[in-house]
Amino acid sequence: MTKQKLDCVFQPKTVAIAGVSTKQTTVPSLSQRYLRAVREYGFKGRVYPLNPKGGEIWGLKIYPNIKDIPEPVDYVISCIPASATPQLIKECAVKGVKVIHFYTSGFSEAGTDEGRRLENEIYSLARQNGMRIIGPNCMGVYSPKANFSFVSDFPKESGSVALICQSGGNTNYIVREGANRGVRFSKVISYGNAVDINESDLLEYLTFDADTEIITAYIEGVKNGKRFSQALREAAKVKPVIVLKSGITESGAKVAASHVSALAGSNEIWDGFLRQVGAIRANSLDELIDMAMTFSYLPLLAGRRVSILGTGGGVTVLAADDCINAGLTVPRFSEGIYNKLKNLLKTEAGVILNNPVDLATGVYQTGIYDVLNTLINCGEFDLHMLHFALGLIGFSPSLRNRIWDSIVEDAIRVHKESAKPVVVVIHSLASNSDYEWMLEAQRKCCEAGIPVYHSMSSAAKAIDRFLRYHELRLTRAQD
Amino acid sequence: MTKQKLDCVFQPKTVAIAGVSTKQTTVPSLSQRYLRAVREYGFKGRVYPLNPKGGEIWGLKIYPNIKDIPEPVDYVISCIPASATPQLIKECAVKGVKVIHFYTSGFSEAGTDEGRRLENEIYSLARQNGMRIIGPNCMGVYSPKANFSFVSDFPKESGSVALICQSGGNTNYIVREGANRGVRFSKVISYGNAVDINESDLLEYLTFDADTEIITAYIEGVKNGKRFSQALREAAKVKPVIVLKSGITESGAKVAASHVSALAGSNEIWDGFLRQVGAIRANSLDELIDMAMTFSYLPLLAGRRVSILGTGGGVTVLAADDCINAGLTVPRFSEGIYNKLKNLLKTEAGVILNNPVDLATGVYQTGIYDVLNTLINCGEFDLHMLHFALGLIGFSPSLRNRIWDSIVEDAIRVHKESAKPVVVVIHSLASNSDYEWMLEAQRKCCEAGIPVYHSMSSAAKAIDRFLRYHELRLTRAQD
Repeated sequence: MTKQKLDCVFQPKTVAIAGVSTKQTTVPSLSQRYLRAVREYGFKGRVYPLNPKGGEIWGLKIYPNIKDIPEPVDYVISCIPASATPQLIKECAVKGVKVIHFYTSGFSEAGTDEGRRLENEIYSLARQNGMRIIGPNCMGVYSPKANFSFVSDFPKESGSVALICQSGGNTNYIVREGANRGVRFSKVISYGNAVDINESDLLEYLTFDADTEIITAYIEGVKNGKRFSQALREAAKVKPVIVLKSGITESGAKVAASHVSALAGSNEIWDGFLRQVGAIRANSLDELIDMAMTFSYLPLLAGRRVSILGTGGGVTVLAADDCINAGLTVPRFSEGIYNKLKNLLKTEAGVILNNPVDLATGVYQTGIYDVLNTLINCGEFDLHMLHFALGLIGFSPSLRNRIWDSIVEDAIRVHKESAKPVVVVIHSLASNSDYEWMLEAQRKCCEAGIPVYHSMSSAAKAIDRFLRYHELRLTRAQD
Repeated sequence: MTKQKLDCVFQPKTVAIAGVSTKQTTVPSLSQRYLRAVREYGFKGRVYPLNPKGGEIWGLKIYPNIKDIPEPVDYVISCIPASATPQLIKECAVKGVKVIHFYTSGFSEAGTDEGRRLENEIYSLARQNGMRIIGPNCMGVYSPKANFSFVSDFPKESGSVALICQSGGNTNYIVREGANRGVRFSKVISYGNAVDINESDLLEYLTFDADTEIITAYIEGVKNGKRFSQALREAAKVKPVIVLKSGITESGAKVAASHVSALAGSNEIWDGFLRQVGAIRANSLDELIDMAMTFSYLPLLAGRRVSILGTGGGVTVLAADDCINAGLTVPRFSEGIYNKLKNLLKTEAGVILNNPVDLATGVYQTGIYDVLNTLINCGEFDLHMLHFALGLIGFSPSLRNRIWDSIVEDAIRVHKESAKPVVVVIHSLASNSDYEWMLEAQRKCCEAGIPVYHSMSSAAKAIDRFLRYHELRLTRAQD
């Protein structure tokens, strides 16, 4: 039931955008941005701008009323003022529209009686006419398989991660930075006030969505705690569900109320609850992306034993601390492996060689291929971490880049040949050229199936949570 | 006594570099990098390359032996193999050298009997001849006031932050990224194995160093716990001391031992110890930089009440959570202020307006000058936080940059006029252009005396620690 009902949300056929203004302003109006985004992203259906004043924009006729559009319309994006929305719904009903997404705000989140009344009214009207509402007060849908997006430069390829997100800005960031990190999305929705389609509907839908292997969620508040709990528990049985809950402090909760009219809840309650239902908690947007990437890329690991390779004595000591603090183990090498590595790296005095390994400058001559292969084949480790501390290097960026590019290539080659799990950490950036190198190396690694993290501690935390998730499932399966 | 003795470490007059090779290699040898760095950074004294083979490099004569140098030399940088170091010390003694810095490694950190024997030998020899040793196994000194640096592109200006750092790579990163964040240094030393000059000597020296107002330290292990404890306690009485202790896990400690031959210690012991002596603990290189910047920029605050301004509903909710979780308070506005802001921001529905404030797109027309002025003058807050979530914005980077540049300018203007504490947080970066804008905005803010953080949670944590430091001093002073 739910599945069928929500397919229309993610697969629009013909779209109308209500409230398209023709005015040129410094910051383009949202209605114009929607129109541009839907067209530029590559939507295959037709898009009709609407405005009672009529006119033309970018060569497109603006229709005064939806009834004037010469073909059926199944999907409407509303950028009109809240007060005019009931009338829009009535007109959409006549036209047979299935879904209205209200970018429009000024409903219950405004905290006024009129806002609450309007929200109830649009809900009743939509319900009476068999229409579904996205929002109000949200950015809407990004559905790459349907060539549909509210931002034109989101990735064209679809992937296995779904995102349900109560904030439009956060949706933007998670998709953009997620894309940099190699995360690709099946279905993304910024759902705002959730007057109709809410977090529970979406969880239920995505639980059985064949395109979605991992569910991520940014939630400020839930509409119906009991139903949400049930939906989350069921979803978590079927696939990993990563949840960032905000509004967890008293102050945050008050803010959430005026953002999307949400009832929040305390930190401890959410912590216990998420653990109990088997969901994975993220504590920031970046942690959510870290986790989405980790679940997208890492295979099941046999255990917690990591090898750590990097350049720099101090960061090597810190790397060991970070991994141990997060609950990973960093066992020392057997004598055989130790001697082999010593040989391969032509180790100078003063170089740390027993897990973690400070590759030191020797690696600039030898590369990493043989070293990593030795570690990967020795059977003493479950995961291999290669880290690059960019801002620590004393010599020129161009030389550094050339050398480190070849180390990245070595790592990709070993990973491809062995199919064993490797992760890369690129950290301690201190310049534009560091950031540029990072983005490019990250892109290459992701393409080769190697996840890239931005600090040793965030990598270790994400890997620990990934391991704990699978350990818990194993324990529960055995019970 | 200590002061006099260590001045020579930070004020070299004439420098010789032992072991300068003339070979051209892909990665320049460290001896060449030292030679280049000392000259390019702008050292006013003469620099003499040494090598038994003689020859010439970059138009400089290479002297076969230090005794051949036609003037007194007070400072030597050694890049020769460990085995040859005793002989070098003897020759330096004859020449009247005061300080030898051993980049050379292969001493106790190598874990061999020979390494330990050599380390004892150079220590005895130096002591017999009244010479001080920096290291061995370290990068040495950056002392901007003396125009002396081991990296050519470190900032020329000196500042009030001293850094004692047991890792050369970490020294590089802290100085570089610190420079980006507006931190300037009085005296910096990467001191490695600390056979002679150790963390306690340096703390004692810096406690009474008039150029130093804030001491930062990256320490892997201490030589003499009792003396260190005493030195740290005394230093912390006089100025803020920020300590990043690594090697705090069993595994990290083992690594520290082979890095700089250091005895480490457990996490809990260090936590209690640092609190007890009144030092401030940092848990990562970036936290150390955050703290150095905070103590450099913030004046004493009257309390913990912060106002938060930024753009984006979701990040606004998260910002409140981050501040509260770190122990700051985010009080709601009085009615008068609320109405004033509402007026100023021409608030649309759906915008969060009661601390934190979602500035929303209205701010692109109105700017932030009046809003921030209103908050700064209302007396309801002790600190004002302005944050920019870069990767959340849907429109073009060029338009975004133009608008946000003007908001940064407004903030700088208010700060200059009012002299009230403002901090800026630039976070959620997702592209090269985000990073570029961040670096430039950060530079402008630092120049105007506004510290810039890279996440709301790291900002809130640093500010909380800063407040706790001063609260504790106040309590102790009243006892």
